[in-house]
Amino acid sequence: MQFQPKMTVAELNEFVKEVFPESIQYLWHAEEILPGGIRVSMKITEKDLRPGGTISGPTMFSLADVTAYLLILAHIGKVALAVTTNLNINFLNKPVHGDLIAEGTLLKLGKRLAVCDVRIFSVVDHQLVAHATATYSIPPAK
Amino acid sequence: MQFQPKMTVAELNEFVKEVFPESIQYLWHAEEILPGGIRVSMKITEKDLRPGGTISGPTMFSLADVTAYLLILAHIGKVALAVTTNLNINFLNKPVHGDLIAEGTLLKLGKRLAVCDVRIFSVVDHQLVAHATATYSIPPAK
Amino acid sequence: MQFQPKMTVAELNEFVKEVFPESIQYLWHAEEILPGGIRVSMKITEKDLRPGGTISGPTMFSLADVTAYLLILAHIGKVALAVTTNLNINFLNKPVHGDLIAEGTLLKLGKRLAVCDVRIFSVVDHQLVAHATATYSIPPAK
Amino acid sequence: MQFQPKMTVAELNEFVKEVFPESIQYLWHAEEILPGGIRVSMKITEKDLRPGGTISGPTMFSLADVTAYLLILAHIGKVALAVTTNLNINFLNKPVHGDLIAEGTLLKLGKRLAVCDVRIFSVVDHQLVAHATATYSIPPAK
Repeated sequence: MQFQPKMTVAELNEFVKEVFPESIQYLWHAEEILPGGIRVSMKITEKDLRPGGTISGPTMFSLADVTAYLLILAHIGKVALAVTTNLNINFLNKPVHGDLIAEGTLLKLGKRLAVCDVRIFSVVDHQLVAHATATYSIPPAK
Repeated sequence: MQFQPKMTVAELNEFVKEVFPESIQYLWHAEEILPGGIRVSMKITEKDLRPGGTISGPTMFSLADVTAYLLILAHIGKVALAVTTNLNINFLNKPVHGDLIAEGTLLKLGKRLAVCDVRIFSVVDHQLVAHATATYSIPPAK
Repeated sequence: MQFQPKMTVAELNEFVKEVFPESIQYLWHAEEILPGGIRVSMKITEKDLRPGGTISGPTMFSLADVTAYLLILAHIGKVALAVTTNLNINFLNKPVHGDLIAEGTLLKLGKRLAVCDVRIFSVVDHQLVAHATATYSIPPAK
Repeated sequence: MQFQPKMTVAELNEFVKEVFPESIQYLWHAEEILPGGIRVSMKITEKDLRPGGTISGPTMFSLADVTAYLLILAHIGKVALAVTTNLNINFLNKPVHGDLIAEGTLLKLGKRLAVCDVRIFSVVDHQLVAHATATYSIPPAK
């Protein structure tokens, strides 16, 4: 894999708390950083649930989006403020009530655009519940 | 337009509150139903904001998703429990702090799948801030 | 609408033939340019058909892609070489055998990215057969 | 992996030639079938090229689409006529002139919908040139 991380898990989680203080309300954090990859876990609470005990679409969207964000930050360092330009998500299986884990993989890390693949699993039964592809725009270095 | 609504705005908002009680936390409701179309407004609160006062991606995603859901319900009636299978969203312009309005249009209303186009505007400056295409799976009638 | 075309239909079709000579094999051309919009027609031949007389997915993809390309060119002028970065297409109804017409609309025309909405209709029965959203990357002006 | 193929590579390529005779013009065929996966190669000819020697978007789209189709057929057998309902493609790197190889993976194989991940590589330099997610609708068994 040609991608090399520029931050450790501790540095990444620390940096996100600084620049993005409201992130605490989402209850997610990076678990592991690999070359070109990341694992992010998310605690599910009552407000994430839908009738029948399943997890809401917006909750899975927000996990996919933040996983791509953390993945890119981990590989470009503390410099840039990337923003989502496109996110395509497929909901594959209804998740049971329980925490989620997301695995993100860099597909491209260009000067202007980064593209990430994100797979979301239930920690309860390890089922793949959603798949997303996200594009972030990377602002020009100053 | 070949699509005919089966519910009024009042019936739709009432029905959603019944089957989906936690919807109240999102602060959205249908404003107008047209043949093949809908307008949905969403109140933005502190928890929807990101650094700099802009509105978060998950908030816009949840508005796009619920607009497609309300649009489909309005045209198939109280019978079915549709679920999102795919949602593709493009973030076009950073919204300023203020409420949002979404315009949904049916592209297809088949027996098994419905496809909707959703455009999200800021009520402050009327700028188009996001565009989404959503596919819902419609369960077989019993 | 805030978008203003910079080329006429004749200038656009002429320019495309020059820079993109193999475009002739596709049998499409711009019909009309509007502020923020375009109409492109495409002749369907035997090689575009699938069993049962319907039109192939790749043919509709190529019409969606070229419509976005022509739409952007018409609004930025002869300067830039834009490339597709993302295209999301929903196939809505099986087209009958017959020519296609595409209507493209600019959703965003930024310095780096342009986003277009494209709807494809059959000229035979005016049915909406496909809907696409395309993102193009615009290279920096030299 | 929970997916089990129902056809060999030889059976699959034979079946496609029968039901889809014009497939020969595209110059692709399945190379390998794995549980939940497939590899498909595509010969690139003059008509697939764009100015500068790169490969056209519609060519990569058609490879992504057929890879998903072959992947699903290989896992549901000769029974059903699946059709593409959605395809989202990201163009990541400009392919050099040379043949392409696609790796498809099943994300979901439901009764009504199948969702596939497809990655397209250049055989010349092994670079990832495009990534697609495709949804197929599977008709009800008779």
